[in-house]
Amino acid sequence: MPGPIQSIERAAAILRLLARGSGRLGIGEIAESLELAKGTAHGILRTLQGVGFVEQDKDTGKYQLGAALLHLGTSYLDVNELRSRAINWADALAARSGEAVRIGAPLEGRVLVVHHVFRPDDSLQTLDVGALLPLHATALGKVLLAYDTTLVASLRGGELEAYTRRTLASPTAVKRALAGVREAGWASELGEMTPGEAGIAAPIRGHGGIVVGAMGISGAAERLCDPDGSPKATLLTYVRDAARAVSRDLGASRW
Amino acid sequence: MPGPIQSIERAAAILRLLARGSGRLGIGEIAESLELAKGTAHGILRTLQGVGFVEQDKDTGKYQLGAALLHLGTSYLDVNELRSRAINWADALAARSGEAVRIGAPLEGRVLVVHHVFRPDDSLQTLDVGALLPLHATALGKVLLAYDTTLVASLRGGELEAYTRRTLASPTAVKRALAGVREAGWASELGEMTPGEAGIAAPIRGHGGIVVGAMGISGAAERLCDPDGSPKATLLTYVRDAARAVSRDLGASRW
Repeated sequence: MPGPIQSIERAAAILRLLARGSGRLGIGEIAESLELAKGTAHGILRTLQGVGFVEQDKDTGKYQLGAALLHLGTSYLDVNELRSRAINWADALAARSGEAVRIGAPLEGRVLVVHHVFRPDDSLQTLDVGALLPLHATALGKVLLAYDTTLVASLRGGELEAYTRRTLASPTAVKRALAGVREAGWASELGEMTPGEAGIAAPIRGHGGIVVGAMGISGAAERLCDPDGSPKATLLTYVRDAARAVSRDLGASRW
Repeated sequence: MPGPIQSIERAAAILRLLARGSGRLGIGEIAESLELAKGTAHGILRTLQGVGFVEQDKDTGKYQLGAALLHLGTSYLDVNELRSRAINWADALAARSGEAVRIGAPLEGRVLVVHHVFRPDDSLQTLDVGALLPLHATALGKVLLAYDTTLVASLRGGELEAYTRRTLASPTAVKRALAGVREAGWASELGEMTPGEAGIAAPIRGHGGIVVGAMGISGAAERLCDPDGSPKATLLTYVRDAARAVSRDLGASRW
């Protein structure tokens, strides 16, 4: 069987590169980052431009992601079964808990937010759908890590990024926490990603009980947690019930 | 200068195909639609799967768009200057008008919605960002058509899709309407896309006065229009003022 097609892999690498950092790069930076000859990078970029996946700024000549990707990305959401099965349960969870609800699935060693229901109040909130969150510093991520041995392997290689004083930045500490998550059947974080913010999440299972995603709430620590730092029992029950309901809709047997 | 890279163009065509219709296709359907040998299609699909742009359903073996595209799509939004300059003005327009606001740019002969502010009430609304709307049946599309001769060329080739009884389905009728849009500096539609719904839009201009997008409100016809079917004067002023404010932020000179 022939191997993967190199030019497509390189095109994907360029798109991933443009999705990082400032989002605008010159041909030299792109070629250097991916160790490509300038001519090779240029040929790929021109083709990507032709199909609308990349745009070139007229003034600076720099490249950035193109509009066609936005339509592909939202079309992905339309066929995402996890998301479509979870939408009603996520709305109900937000209404019951009074907190923002997010659903995540693993992507490239991080948590991809595939659905986000705003906290049901009038405050200004920004949509997290499409964002990539760290695995080790979010409740959603801890759930995904706890049930996926391949993901855990991505923790190897020394210290993890410490977003706050409370982030579990050593792989050993994370692994100890994951054993607790597996035993309890849910995960939480308190100020590990953003000071004063907390999260509670539970696994979503598909056919055969395999964990396919995580569903959780996040918000101000004083609303989500008791004074001792543990998640409020009522909220925890809401989250677990909602994740279980989605799992049943996805074909997991009751557990 | 070498031409575009065929395998990347074919990969993009497969992704576009998967973004249409049901969103799930078998290898046979894909190969046939794009007139590729099955082996060729298979090699491209396996590579796309490897980079996360395509996923294969375990049960049916069918292919669908992959999660990596969602992150690329939302990363596109982060660097989209039209959107970032327009966000505050769009919020203000929604608050003043009490209606939903959308910003569109042309993509593949349609209107790509790059920003959407919900109507400021508690009703259930779905996010249109990433959706592709028809040019000839929306106020946003008419604005884009009115100022872009290449887009108008896409109208050639007989009758356009009639979404309602009121849709301007003949290229001649559309072109007549576009002359009116250019003269007035704004566009409207009344029940041309959905019965009972109306829209009002104005052009967003960038450097040198070039129209780079359209901004408008949409909602129930009885709220947006006077009994004679013309847009309410106050709402029209709000829309035009907002589009002009965004244009100035984008570097267009006053006009």
